[in-house]
Amino acid sequence: MTDGDPIPAAAPVVRPLVWTGAGVRLLDQTRLPDEVVYLEVTDVDEVIDAIRRLAVRGAPALGALGAFGVALVARRASRDGWPADRIAGAIERIRTARPTAVALALGVEEASHRLDAGVDAVVAAASELLARDERRNDEIARLGADWVERRLGRRPLRVVTHCNTGSLAAAGVGTALGIIRELHRRGRVETVYVDETRPLLQGSRLTAWELAVAGVPHRVQVDGAAAGTILRGEIDLAVVGADRIAANGDVANKVGTVGVALACAYAGVPFVVAASADTVDPATPDGAAIPIERRGGEEVLAFQGRRVAPAASPAHNPAFDVTPAGLVTALVTEVGVTEPAAPDAAKPAPG
Amino acid sequence: MTDGDPIPAAAPVVRPLVWTGAGVRLLDQTRLPDEVVYLEVTDVDEVIDAIRRLAVRGAPALGALGAFGVALVARRASRDGWPADRIAGAIERIRTARPTAVALALGVEEASHRLDAGVDAVVAAASELLARDERRNDEIARLGADWVERRLGRRPLRVVTHCNTGSLAAAGVGTALGIIRELHRRGRVETVYVDETRPLLQGSRLTAWELAVAGVPHRVQVDGAAAGTILRGEIDLAVVGADRIAANGDVANKVGTVGVALACAYAGVPFVVAASADTVDPATPDGAAIPIERRGGEEVLAFQGRRVAPAASPAHNPAFDVTPAGLVTALVTEVGVTEPAAPDAAKPAPG
Repeated sequence: MTDGDPIPAAAPVVRPLVWTGAGVRLLDQTRLPDEVVYLEVTDVDEVIDAIRRLAVRGAPALGALGAFGVALVARRASRDGWPADRIAGAIERIRTARPTAVALALGVEEASHRLDAGVDAVVAAASELLARDERRNDEIARLGADWVERRLGRRPLRVVTHCNTGSLAAAGVGTALGIIRELHRRGRVETVYVDETRPLLQGSRLTAWELAVAGVPHRVQVDGAAAGTILRGEIDLAVVGADRIAANGDVANKVGTVGVALACAYAGVPFVVAASADTVDPATPDGAAIPIERRGGEEVLAFQGRRVAPAASPAHNPAFDVTPAGLVTALVTEVGVTEPAAPDAAKPAPG
Repeated sequence: MTDGDPIPAAAPVVRPLVWTGAGVRLLDQTRLPDEVVYLEVTDVDEVIDAIRRLAVRGAPALGALGAFGVALVARRASRDGWPADRIAGAIERIRTARPTAVALALGVEEASHRLDAGVDAVVAAASELLARDERRNDEIARLGADWVERRLGRRPLRVVTHCNTGSLAAAGVGTALGIIRELHRRGRVETVYVDETRPLLQGSRLTAWELAVAGVPHRVQVDGAAAGTILRGEIDLAVVGADRIAANGDVANKVGTVGVALACAYAGVPFVVAASADTVDPATPDGAAIPIERRGGEEVLAFQGRRVAPAASPAHNPAFDVTPAGLVTALVTEVGVTEPAAPDAAKPAPG
């Protein structure tokens, strides 16, 4: 955030990716919280590898990296005289490197529209996408915190979140974690229950790290603890992000999200989803139509190379799940807040 | 199981503990699935240590170990001439080594009633407790499988379970896993979704190991995947165990259980709880009155000694959660099956 912003966060935000001129400098999120290691990607295969192994993750950050990936394609195509079909093939490989988040495809497509204007124009489009996401993050944080204060009063809250939706996942303060940071800035956070978010521990590794850096009180819990803690009355609010929202309001997000939503619905705790408006995909009618990425079993069966299950046991490893719209108390985007679970709720407006 | 048993399981069962005369020989479950290591405990402190660090776990096995622990107290007291208050103190330390499972306290109390009859009488009481649990396991397996066949028909099912409730946790085939083994013996199991059961991975380490040994098709998933998989229609049945059941039918079981129950209720999938009848504690009116063990944060924050969360981040680590009776489709004990979630359900009979 720059000086003069109307809604400063409580602490500086981290930048997951920066365009260097030669390529994209990435904070390798697989190494956190042990080490803060940056790597620079300069060609298509490196971009795809960084996306697939989750060195960069989170819907908004994926969108930006996809756009810069198109810039790398454009530069290479210009230098080596690639034919149109080779350019299109490389761009398609980036666009589909992960299937669930709509932001990746949108970022790639937005940058691709500038291909005819040259490499600099594509870089400018990708940079504008980052800047726009930062402004959207701020607006989501403000609108979300306002909604929470109206709904729950101006008091310190016990908040649960799942996965990582902070500055590591976005260009600015993030989405769900941006709202939590803004609530903390206003003195409305007693503590944050951070779901560890198996299998890749984005909660304990990344969200806890961001909250520790920002000085927000928090505690890490296993994902299975969320429902019981909510039912015991120890949590006032849940805030999560989204990777894709169907036209009917169903929300695809990190696996484990719908369990939090079900517990909130049972206990009468508000379940808030925060995402940029273009996460709503009008081409996807409902949650059943959202492709759910199935990742490799070793993420579940081994930890840092050591097997934790018998050699003969396979795994089931969906990376996302779908929360029905009827379980979403509030959907916060930069254009406003809708209440899908309310009896006469309007459907979320397509982005 | 012995020859001539009317309901042979599909494969031999494992024995988590055996009385050797000198002490109790334990299968150290913290070492599975990497190594099958036995250890022999011969005094009170070793019994308590084995219970606290979960070398032995599972309600029925804890009950038996608690009873043998009283035998070790009796022998030591007889040899060293302990006064009554020292005997009572040692027994109380075993009884309260873990607070949630009622079986541990019941096993200790049952054995304690024979103290006046001498060491051999206490050993005999503990041995009878093991033998009785084995018979109960068989009856639970038969009654549970019968109920499932009546409810879902005689077809191969996709079953989810949480934590470990098999022979490692009991004297015989186990409770929930005993039902699953019996269903498999009858040809009614397509596959078992095994929740890995963080933080200690009793699902991926122990349940998957038992199913692999018994030749039952299965796949391991992170706990957060259970709800989404159930809502997608990929699971027909959930079967779990219980550590304590309140008089009103609320069920305390391994943390993460209530999330499975909520998803089953939402999706209309039967949620079955299996436990011996004495798991129902008439002295506990409801779930809110069940003490929930809070374990150390390092179980969540570190893996095999390596920290996975920032040094500054604390953990919230409840070992159990409570499933409201209204979410339990069937409660299977050795005395019969009740249906707590049915509109006019009778409360479960105290054991």
